[in-house]
Amino acid sequence: MIKYYHHDRPFLLESGECIPNLTIAYHTFGTYDPERNNCVWVCHGLTANSDVADWWAPAVAEGSFLNPSEKFVVCANILGSHYGSTGPLSVNPDTGSPYYDSFPALTIRDMARANSLLADYLGLAEIDTLIGASVGGFQALEWAVAEPRRFRKLVLVATAAKASPWSIALDETQRMAIKADPTYGEPRADAAMAGMAAARAIGLLSYRGPYAYNLTQKEPADTPNGAPKRPVTYQRYQGEKLCRRFNAYSYVAILDAFDTHDLGRGRGGVEAALLTLPMPVLVVGIDSDIIFTPGEMRELSAMIPDCVFEEISSDMGHDGFLTEHARLNSIIKPFIS
Amino acid sequence: MIKYYHHDRPFLLESGECIPNLTIAYHTFGTYDPERNNCVWVCHGLTANSDVADWWAPAVAEGSFLNPSEKFVVCANILGSHYGSTGPLSVNPDTGSPYYDSFPALTIRDMARANSLLADYLGLAEIDTLIGASVGGFQALEWAVAEPRRFRKLVLVATAAKASPWSIALDETQRMAIKADPTYGEPRADAAMAGMAAARAIGLLSYRGPYAYNLTQKEPADTPNGAPKRPVTYQRYQGEKLCRRFNAYSYVAILDAFDTHDLGRGRGGVEAALLTLPMPVLVVGIDSDIIFTPGEMRELSAMIPDCVFEEISSDMGHDGFLTEHARLNSIIKPFIS
Repeated sequence: MIKYYHHDRPFLLESGECIPNLTIAYHTFGTYDPERNNCVWVCHGLTANSDVADWWAPAVAEGSFLNPSEKFVVCANILGSHYGSTGPLSVNPDTGSPYYDSFPALTIRDMARANSLLADYLGLAEIDTLIGASVGGFQALEWAVAEPRRFRKLVLVATAAKASPWSIALDETQRMAIKADPTYGEPRADAAMAGMAAARAIGLLSYRGPYAYNLTQKEPADTPNGAPKRPVTYQRYQGEKLCRRFNAYSYVAILDAFDTHDLGRGRGGVEAALLTLPMPVLVVGIDSDIIFTPGEMRELSAMIPDCVFEEISSDMGHDGFLTEHARLNSIIKPFIS
Repeated sequence: MIKYYHHDRPFLLESGECIPNLTIAYHTFGTYDPERNNCVWVCHGLTANSDVADWWAPAVAEGSFLNPSEKFVVCANILGSHYGSTGPLSVNPDTGSPYYDSFPALTIRDMARANSLLADYLGLAEIDTLIGASVGGFQALEWAVAEPRRFRKLVLVATAAKASPWSIALDETQRMAIKADPTYGEPRADAAMAGMAAARAIGLLSYRGPYAYNLTQKEPADTPNGAPKRPVTYQRYQGEKLCRRFNAYSYVAILDAFDTHDLGRGRGGVEAALLTLPMPVLVVGIDSDIIFTPGEMRELSAMIPDCVFEEISSDMGHDGFLTEHARLNSIIKPFIS
């Protein structure tokens, strides 16, 4: 069940701008046992939400690393998102209308600091394990460096310590597609839906990559002549599906935040920042990931003092973190336990 | 200098539709010497043109495989394109106005057959080498299978015998971006420019891939705080650059044609079609190509009876066929000579 923490004080953003008050939507699973320090905090990606049992179902299951009968699992919806936390569709108290495209610019550090407020509110001074996959890993890294004593262990899956030129190019291309839809900027929640559908299709290309598409989107042998091709209907369907559950202003706000990701900003660089991590860290890469390539994942792990690196073999690209459950569990579960 | 062949008869398309008359723009370089059969025909890709010396300059140079003092090089602008051949901006004789989005659907075979008409007109019954890179390779394969006796050798660089689900997904995503711009469909040459800019940015992601972006779009150390990030300006610039030289109707017409590519259509499948190739074939793959992956290039070469396969190592992805001149030349030149 979704819960809300209302932080009724101004929240100062890294940019210097201020959000008058903050709502953080979150989910918990299982029961907190301070004696056993059984808390695992999960950070989510671009269009996911705080309901880990929804988007990472096999992980929140008996026998798995987020088994709620053993662990107390917490996940907060990221700032700027569509799923309950303060974001572009929230009402700006200064104007009485939703922010839409005037929502203040966020950084990954702002997202991590919102998590920190929620953790304080929940009385979680010590969290056993912080897990982030994809851009959830951006937040996990920022939070772990900001509050190294709060966490005993850190798990990073298919992520990076700094937005790479490639990932920024992916983000900008999605913004270009959204803004090619001139309804972007109109003061309504369903502005720029055609643009966001195209952006989602771009995102999917990067999440899956060539091997996954060629494996899963092959034309069935009995396709009638002239029927729309399967990858065509798939891209459209995925675009439309996101339009039914998300909004373009949140999408852009979060993409913008991704681009700011640099763990080393104001800390003497990425290497210096990573050197401050005192806890054991598990880094997991995916061999077919074209967003966070295996080479970059190895480089990341090499910069972390107390680090174990594992690589998963998968045809599913970056989305392997959502599909390769058995392998992920066999790596993460022993590390957490 | 650009030349034009006007084919003043109806041109029947594979779809059954008819173009009342055809213009084919082309370039030649060097002097045709029938005694030495020194003709090399080059097929170009999506937004290129017939001026090979422009877009493949190092290839059309002294010491290189298209050296015009030895070879007679021919390249025709593909049907549907923006550069002189009949396409969506041509006037439809039936209406007196440009076709725009009513241009009849093209296939790769139509493009190959237009080449064949031009070759007949030029008196090139025998062509020494047919070269196609990227979707130029789609046309080269179609033409070589349709007229196997016309060519002595075939060179295929970073291409495929059939559009893969992944390449179709890439194309559809670009179409989604173009059509997110509601000016697509308006009867003017500069319709959907914002959409086409986004489509181009998507294309570039696929042409380059992660290694190229991370290598060439790194932020310079002295970037002022708050300055737009380099991959952001790069994507926008590339989009705008295409808008100054191309049109969205041609872009979509050509993408649509790509998706139809299937060398095996009506020929008992891709393998059966490739088995009919009588000439020696050189297949060149690029290890970092995320459109036509190295594995697919090897598979293609394995299906061709008389085939040499070479793989180029490059960080530049698919665009390696435009950048790795020395290596390409060292492979193609001896094969041609």
